[in-house]
Amino acid sequence: MQIHVPFDQAARLKYPEQVVLVLTVDRNNKVNVITLGWSMFTSHQPPMMAISVGLSRYSHEALTGRDEFVLAFPGRNMAKEALYCGTNSGRAVDKIIETGLELTDSLEVSVPLLKDAVANFECRIVERLLTGDHTIFVGQVVASHRNQMPAERLYTLGPSYQLGYPGL
Amino acid sequence: MQIHVPFDQAARLKYPEQVVLVLTVDRNNKVNVITLGWSMFTSHQPPMMAISVGLSRYSHEALTGRDEFVLAFPGRNMAKEALYCGTNSGRAVDKIIETGLELTDSLEVSVPLLKDAVANFECRIVERLLTGDHTIFVGQVVASHRNQMPAERLYTLGPSYQLGYPGL
Repeated sequence: MQIHVPFDQAARLKYPEQVVLVLTVDRNNKVNVITLGWSMFTSHQPPMMAISVGLSRYSHEALTGRDEFVLAFPGRNMAKEALYCGTNSGRAVDKIIETGLELTDSLEVSVPLLKDAVANFECRIVERLLTGDHTIFVGQVVASHRNQMPAERLYTLGPSYQLGYPGL
Repeated sequence: MQIHVPFDQAARLKYPEQVVLVLTVDRNNKVNVITLGWSMFTSHQPPMMAISVGLSRYSHEALTGRDEFVLAFPGRNMAKEALYCGTNSGRAVDKIIETGLELTDSLEVSVPLLKDAVANFECRIVERLLTGDHTIFVGQVVASHRNQMPAERLYTLGPSYQLGYPGL
């Protein structure tokens, strides 16, 4: 039986929600990392991924100025770093320095990979679409990487940034 | 340490992946249900959701012909129905009859709700974007509903349609 409720009340039933980290390079060549809950695959052939980024975010500027990003799956042991990158702005801090996240070379884009991520996808932006207070950036995946060590992804388990792995 | 691998090898590290059911009405007024792994929220104000649907899917036709859909979160007890709706085509079968899924009235759109879902979002399509072999349909949420009984969402736990709830 369904009850009509405000959007927020229904939307909070979405958890666990997968988390991704999106790496960009700003106009001063500083690497920035944003934590996003809103992302999806959107094509098999060619492989593409879509991310939804708030208009006010510092990463939005970097994604508008440069046609590339790296989408990384953080591991379940990266909750602290993901929380930091999701609640601080690259306008005010250097998130790479503050978190100690390690970078490594990418192959096809000018944005580096996250060394300890579960997987990294190098993306070249092929479409942008304004949707309300966010923009959808569609990236064609031009190179993919996985961690040498198998690991589980990180999820948001509930409101107020409860990060972890579901069921544990 | 990252290893360069083909896209599919990195992409299979995405699990658990959330599952949604998208309800549409075709030109013969038949209700159809498709199971999707590729969806995301994409705006707070106004609330919007995005879904990515393969060009060859029967639901793609219905979404192109009518400006509305309902996005439902299936419960973890709906694995059998979600598997059926994800592996059969509305061109060949009536999925509502075959699965026994129960429908209930919506408020703002001409597509019904899924009676036993965790939540239902009535969406009016405001944008369409071709991305490779899929189209992203962006729906503005015009009414939201939740199940009277709290319940957990359904996830894909691994390749070959392993549906269930993570960690259990």
